[in-house]
Amino acid sequence: MFRLIAFDADDTLWHNERLYTKGRDRFRRLLASYDVHDAIEEYVHQTEMRNIRYYGFGVMSFALSLIEAAIDLTHGRISSGDIGSLLDMGKEMLTADIDLFEGAEEAVAHLSAQYPLMLITKGDLLHQQAKVEQSGLAKYFRHVEVVSDKSEATYRAILSRLHLDPAHFLMVGNSLRSDILPVVRLGGWAVHIPAELSWSYEEAELPGGLHERYFEVRNLGELPGFLESLRNQA
Amino acid sequence: MFRLIAFDADDTLWHNERLYTKGRDRFRRLLASYDVHDAIEEYVHQTEMRNIRYYGFGVMSFALSLIEAAIDLTHGRISSGDIGSLLDMGKEMLTADIDLFEGAEEAVAHLSAQYPLMLITKGDLLHQQAKVEQSGLAKYFRHVEVVSDKSEATYRAILSRLHLDPAHFLMVGNSLRSDILPVVRLGGWAVHIPAELSWSYEEAELPGGLHERYFEVRNLGELPGFLESLRNQA
Repeated sequence: MFRLIAFDADDTLWHNERLYTKGRDRFRRLLASYDVHDAIEEYVHQTEMRNIRYYGFGVMSFALSLIEAAIDLTHGRISSGDIGSLLDMGKEMLTADIDLFEGAEEAVAHLSAQYPLMLITKGDLLHQQAKVEQSGLAKYFRHVEVVSDKSEATYRAILSRLHLDPAHFLMVGNSLRSDILPVVRLGGWAVHIPAELSWSYEEAELPGGLHERYFEVRNLGELPGFLESLRNQA
Repeated sequence: MFRLIAFDADDTLWHNERLYTKGRDRFRRLLASYDVHDAIEEYVHQTEMRNIRYYGFGVMSFALSLIEAAIDLTHGRISSGDIGSLLDMGKEMLTADIDLFEGAEEAVAHLSAQYPLMLITKGDLLHQQAKVEQSGLAKYFRHVEVVSDKSEATYRAILSRLHLDPAHFLMVGNSLRSDILPVVRLGGWAVHIPAELSWSYEEAELPGGLHERYFEVRNLGELPGFLESLRNQA
């Protein structure tokens, strides 16, 4: 039924958003002594959204946006020492240990014996590659793609390079916006595994009519069994 | 003779280093009012080198390193307004127009009729893709690879994915370190086109014994004729 199964990485195979959540908390604490009256969280979000076109996704983008937001929100009163601590935080995030979700390795190892697997992740090229390497999961994936965005065009280009009909492609991920919607729109299949923490950017509404092409399982441990049952139905 | 010809992009097909040179000049002027006694240029270079392992190559890496160097060199006296102007500079560099080298399009168009062409460029994924798009040259390349570093392992992985023997591969670029040395070491061929401005990082000494596998031409305009003469000799 499926000739290729692709996985998202961040918040699908390993924890990621909680590093950003911690980062946002640290940012708020940093600004506490500056008597900032604007809504910090919202301002950071708007800055990140505005900067995606320059910086794309990832930790460097986050760090640069936090520095910009800190200058704006404090009307230039932020100390250079505090800006330096935002740089330090970025480096800590870039070198943080990979913490796999429970059952991630088992699920991926199990499925890699039955299907060719691909990893599709968006963000900083160097950092995403380093995380894949450090995760110990690289050996299970035939292809690893780091992309600048997960749009329909991105998935179309990947599938076309592999001469693969979307009808034979399944994507597994936590993000309705990046992993599910573009794939089912293309005529592919998707399994949504909601993460406890997901970035608000990754939310999406799925239009009616597409629901029959996507499924939801609660965690990675359920995935092999679910695909088995799907295969038995087909 | 060659089954694939690959081009570097920055400072091979279009101007790039001069944006960084301008950036370094602007940084020096910015620090002029802070009574900095250290060697600014050297400190920036050391900061960039130290940070490659975190940030990789590209404008975001450069901007983050300049902010860090500014804080260090001024012992924290840099104003947040001046840090903001470094952020602005980064965004200007990320959106600067592409200025092709003379003869670049003609050379690439001409060769694309005879060989499959590939573009191999290192840096920020989103920015490098945007530059390729904006250059108008994308249509001449069968493959475009944005890589985090141009090591022997990188070239080996690319060639192995294409099932291509290095003996049939030619790389064209301005950087001895990134475009020439790793390729000839692998058993491939290379054409060096020195750029007027190249980043000091990109210099390298070629060990003896490898010279017969690499050639030098003065500019892109000479490349098609040179390859023609090489083919006639073979």
